[in-house]
Amino acid sequence: MVKVLSFALFSLATAISAVSAQLDRPGQFYRLGACPDLGCVFPPDRTNFLAGAKFDVRVEVHGEDQIQPDTDYSLSIRKLSKADTKDRKNNSNKPVDFTKFTKVQPDAPEAWNFSYFKDAAAYWKSQSGDKNASTIVNVASSAWRNIQLREPGTYEVLLKYQDKASGNQKTSQLIWNVNAVPKKRKAKNVILFIGDGMTTAMITAARLISKPHVSGLYQKRMHMDQFPVLGHVMTHSVDSLITDSANSASAYNTGHKSSSGALGVYADSSPSPFDDPKQELLAQLLRRRSKKNGGKGGVGIVTTAEVQDATPAAVFSHTRQRGEKATIVDQMIHGQDPVVADVILGGGGKFFHSKNGGKSLNGTDYYEAYSKERGYKTVFDRDELLAYNGKDPLLGIFHSSNLDVWLDRNVYKGNLNQTGSDPRGSGLPALNQPNLDDMVIKGLEVLDKRYRKEGWFMMAEAASVDKMMHPLDYDRALADLLELDNTIGKTKDWLKRNNLDKDTLILTTADHGHSFDVYGSVDTQYFNSFLDSQEVEKKNSIGTYENSGWPSYVDADGDGFPDEWNVRYTLAAGTAGFPTHREDFQVNVNGARIPAVAQVYEANPEDAPHGINKAGTLGGNESVGVHSLQDVPIFASGPGSELFAGVQDNTEIFHKIAEVLGLGEQK
Amino acid sequence: MVKVLSFALFSLATAISAVSAQLDRPGQFYRLGACPDLGCVFPPDRTNFLAGAKFDVRVEVHGEDQIQPDTDYSLSIRKLSKADTKDRKNNSNKPVDFTKFTKVQPDAPEAWNFSYFKDAAAYWKSQSGDKNASTIVNVASSAWRNIQLREPGTYEVLLKYQDKASGNQKTSQLIWNVNAVPKKRKAKNVILFIGDGMTTAMITAARLISKPHVSGLYQKRMHMDQFPVLGHVMTHSVDSLITDSANSASAYNTGHKSSSGALGVYADSSPSPFDDPKQELLAQLLRRRSKKNGGKGGVGIVTTAEVQDATPAAVFSHTRQRGEKATIVDQMIHGQDPVVADVILGGGGKFFHSKNGGKSLNGTDYYEAYSKERGYKTVFDRDELLAYNGKDPLLGIFHSSNLDVWLDRNVYKGNLNQTGSDPRGSGLPALNQPNLDDMVIKGLEVLDKRYRKEGWFMMAEAASVDKMMHPLDYDRALADLLELDNTIGKTKDWLKRNNLDKDTLILTTADHGHSFDVYGSVDTQYFNSFLDSQEVEKKNSIGTYENSGWPSYVDADGDGFPDEWNVRYTLAAGTAGFPTHREDFQVNVNGARIPAVAQVYEANPEDAPHGINKAGTLGGNESVGVHSLQDVPIFASGPGSELFAGVQDNTEIFHKIAEVLGLGEQK
Repeated sequence: MVKVLSFALFSLATAISAVSAQLDRPGQFYRLGACPDLGCVFPPDRTNFLAGAKFDVRVEVHGEDQIQPDTDYSLSIRKLSKADTKDRKNNSNKPVDFTKFTKVQPDAPEAWNFSYFKDAAAYWKSQSGDKNASTIVNVASSAWRNIQLREPGTYEVLLKYQDKASGNQKTSQLIWNVNAVPKKRKAKNVILFIGDGMTTAMITAARLISKPHVSGLYQKRMHMDQFPVLGHVMTHSVDSLITDSANSASAYNTGHKSSSGALGVYADSSPSPFDDPKQELLAQLLRRRSKKNGGKGGVGIVTTAEVQDATPAAVFSHTRQRGEKATIVDQMIHGQDPVVADVILGGGGKFFHSKNGGKSLNGTDYYEAYSKERGYKTVFDRDELLAYNGKDPLLGIFHSSNLDVWLDRNVYKGNLNQTGSDPRGSGLPALNQPNLDDMVIKGLEVLDKRYRKEGWFMMAEAASVDKMMHPLDYDRALADLLELDNTIGKTKDWLKRNNLDKDTLILTTADHGHSFDVYGSVDTQYFNSFLDSQEVEKKNSIGTYENSGWPSYVDADGDGFPDEWNVRYTLAAGTAGFPTHREDFQVNVNGARIPAVAQVYEANPEDAPHGINKAGTLGGNESVGVHSLQDVPIFASGPGSELFAGVQDNTEIFHKIAEVLGLGEQK
Repeated sequence: MVKVLSFALFSLATAISAVSAQLDRPGQFYRLGACPDLGCVFPPDRTNFLAGAKFDVRVEVHGEDQIQPDTDYSLSIRKLSKADTKDRKNNSNKPVDFTKFTKVQPDAPEAWNFSYFKDAAAYWKSQSGDKNASTIVNVASSAWRNIQLREPGTYEVLLKYQDKASGNQKTSQLIWNVNAVPKKRKAKNVILFIGDGMTTAMITAARLISKPHVSGLYQKRMHMDQFPVLGHVMTHSVDSLITDSANSASAYNTGHKSSSGALGVYADSSPSPFDDPKQELLAQLLRRRSKKNGGKGGVGIVTTAEVQDATPAAVFSHTRQRGEKATIVDQMIHGQDPVVADVILGGGGKFFHSKNGGKSLNGTDYYEAYSKERGYKTVFDRDELLAYNGKDPLLGIFHSSNLDVWLDRNVYKGNLNQTGSDPRGSGLPALNQPNLDDMVIKGLEVLDKRYRKEGWFMMAEAASVDKMMHPLDYDRALADLLELDNTIGKTKDWLKRNNLDKDTLILTTADHGHSFDVYGSVDTQYFNSFLDSQEVEKKNSIGTYENSGWPSYVDADGDGFPDEWNVRYTLAAGTAGFPTHREDFQVNVNGARIPAVAQVYEANPEDAPHGINKAGTLGGNESVGVHSLQDVPIFASGPGSELFAGVQDNTEIFHKIAEVLGLGEQK
């Protein structure tokens, strides 16, 4: 703990004293995110590294319009002495050529061009058909692969190049901090629960609809509420205030911020989604360290989304485009230093095969490939999952796409019939999908059988908190949040029963938020008594402050979910960023909401048809709600949990997990 | 810490095992909040008491419409033995008449009636002129005053009465838990900073506009970010999911939840706002304990609101109606066991005098009364405040109403001229108001001079985070949040300079939230380039995800605030609960926004006249945004801070502060 914190402070102090710190520039459109000028280096300025973790370096030099970039640039690096840190004009350690310093030869020089928009005006001109609205950029580039910085401390990196437009020599001057974490391991196992898109406000609302209270005092609490340590996580991207799930999950798995859509890489400007500069993943590091160090290396991935979706893929994948799902399936077993997780449970069957609309890479049957090449046991429904008692690595795929949500899996089951969702491509619906707790507990059993002695890391995601917040389907989102919380309770019980509770750090967090909150209650009986045209009267069914009273949800059967979702007194809830839609504050029994229909109507005429009209607060290219800025909570319990108290950047989560698992440099 | 936590668990366990726990009933309108049936007892079921803290008890028995209430009711109490707790039919300790048990005689029996609405339909019928829409309730009542329960443990309270409508005997069966806290004091001093209405999302937004970042990584952080301990606070009222500032501040000061508008009391149904059952206040307890125990008793109250406003008044006042501001001024020095705080700094001058619209109680000059009767030094502007170096108690009132907000005090100073805001009623504007840090540091100096040996408690409030969130004036709200954060930094420096940092617990929290969040950025140059009718085009200036980029705010002068508030790239921010209004995402340079004009227009035609239209999400009686549900953060630093980690109810904050200050029963 002391090391991480003192490092963080050191990093801040360095920054403040450094006159040349170039702050992130304002604006919405960039030539290339996190590139401060015409000369770009990735990893960018102020990056924090784990000592000894591998990474690639990409240099790009740009020339706009007709200007060609300087190809005669140079990259150098020096480790700053204490005196150098105080005054960077002090040169007790002199910069050394980067290739010489790292003893790694760069790839052959490359060149390409790309185009971008200078601002919203240019972008929307282009959308109206103006072909001159974008700006062409010519690029000269080099990449160094598989670098390691093993010495903790502060480094200065200098990219010197000529601005060919002005003829001026320029320098991009970066600070990199290399962070040592203690080698001593604090916990044998780590479980990282991610409620995708989950905020504090959602937890509060989920508690309210599921936990009994008397005189306003809860008589039971959420499992998350009972974690002893709480922190907040700052979620900005490397190049924008709002993150997506890829680059935020990537921060947890690499310790590096990145750009929207990127997994395990910094996004460069090249056309290929697979040549971007990579960062070593937590799971890779765990596997690599385990070879030297008695094998502390189990890896489990559980999700209610497709296993290729951003959050699970961030555990094992490297690509600039999270949409490259077929390749992501391949990377798990064939990638460079592949993770080959011991447990992979979730959806996404259509990227494993080529039948009935299956989209696997080159038509390969990846179920067979995983099984034959890597010895995976494959299971495809809940019964098969629960029946498995083996020790082989486990691949369980239960849906062609994302699993259906808890409310449809367990309450409105008729909605499952509507899709040809069988994970093997039969065209039939997947009617026997497991719940999140089924997958997590089975995953833990397999990891325990394979790595009781060595330990393991599991990432388990409740993906549809986010996926249902997007279409403003708060009932479905909160149900999936409760499924996560109930799973955490069952996990704690399982760990205790198996004497692993004292060896296991449990983290529960999110990757970003949505601007959801509850501002009162709704008397839906009164709401529904008015004609659609009586909007003012309908809104008078909303009670605030003392008239918010209490909603009608009750969990009499004690399963952790409301017994009835279609109740008279519901929550008056909403978000800040939404498309034009209608709102009736009532559960949609026919499946997830589709609030707006882009290109045809603004509000979907079939969604909440008797609801009040809400004029959207987003630009015309958004048909659903969007992510928001707020820090997300992190709950921690078990050995090492104290590291996660207070406010921290999402990249720090990686460094702290690395510390807990003893993944520091092992020279 | 162990005691508080184990108590909480015990309380939950008791509740779960008790078959008769009556959950809060669903609905928006109640005959009387927190009263489960026709027989009501305050404090209500499941209340947690600090051992030895004083409180009143109120019993009400109701009869609806023509039915008269039973006047022959009886109240009894028993302390549950361990066996009784497990099985409440076990009667090893038998119930004893309440008067006999407490040795306190009740007041003379009372009777009155009141009316209420059964639901929204009835309420809105009444608003349309239907005089039969409300229901009359006849009440028989008793009150016991100044009770103490000194023995920790679980008590059962039984109210037996007849339902005169059915003739049936009924029993209201309550559980009260009496909480012992260790006598050993953990800290000499406690500062409780309250950002009224402040949420995590607001802190994130305030950080973004004021702290430098490079590659998405902050190079400076908020002072709050640097607190080592973080918790969340659940804010429900005793009788509604959404709280107001009175009853939530009251929870911090008494350990009891209450109803909207109530300060230091439970709200009964009687007409008087001053006869409701009281709870002993933290400040009263500190004063009382100090007499026996070497005097650990300084009290300071600082606010940017009126000193009679809910949050400051909760430190020293008892009333069911926060609006009784003239009486609240009187209670500080003349109330029953008056608090007579050593430091009172804020606004609210018009309730101290009767000149020029002054509204003081009975026309009294309270500046003179405070000065003559209690020896207060009075100051009325910033210069007088800063010049004071005495040891006498300090009353500083700097505005007739709430202080102007930071943005008007410091940037748009012309707005100060528009009000006759002099605190002494001269009719002139108050042009020389102090900032929050001026008041807090001066308050600390006075407390330190008076109580360096004995210690003190200060509550310091940034009131206008809330007051500016209501009219959706996010710039003004965030500026006042930054003023709070900068004040915290200066406070920490002051404590360190005065060798008090190791003796002082600092808490920073809120009383409730607003549903504010940021969902992107706005290119206001592009926004403003369109005609008012071009709403779709205006909305295309909103960038989300990767196109949210970075806003243009910069704090180059390092004062902790943006140098310029009127910038090109602003935050796309909003709330979930709002009246119909217009939004242009730009700072209002002419003073606080007035988003909607009730009864005349829905949207105020003069607010954001070129903004996009936002159809409201609230009932017709709301002209501004409303409070929201989400748990609020609590940041803790210093001795005892570990008690505040994790999720807790707002009433627990009182118990934990009492523990830190060693205010447990001193038998």
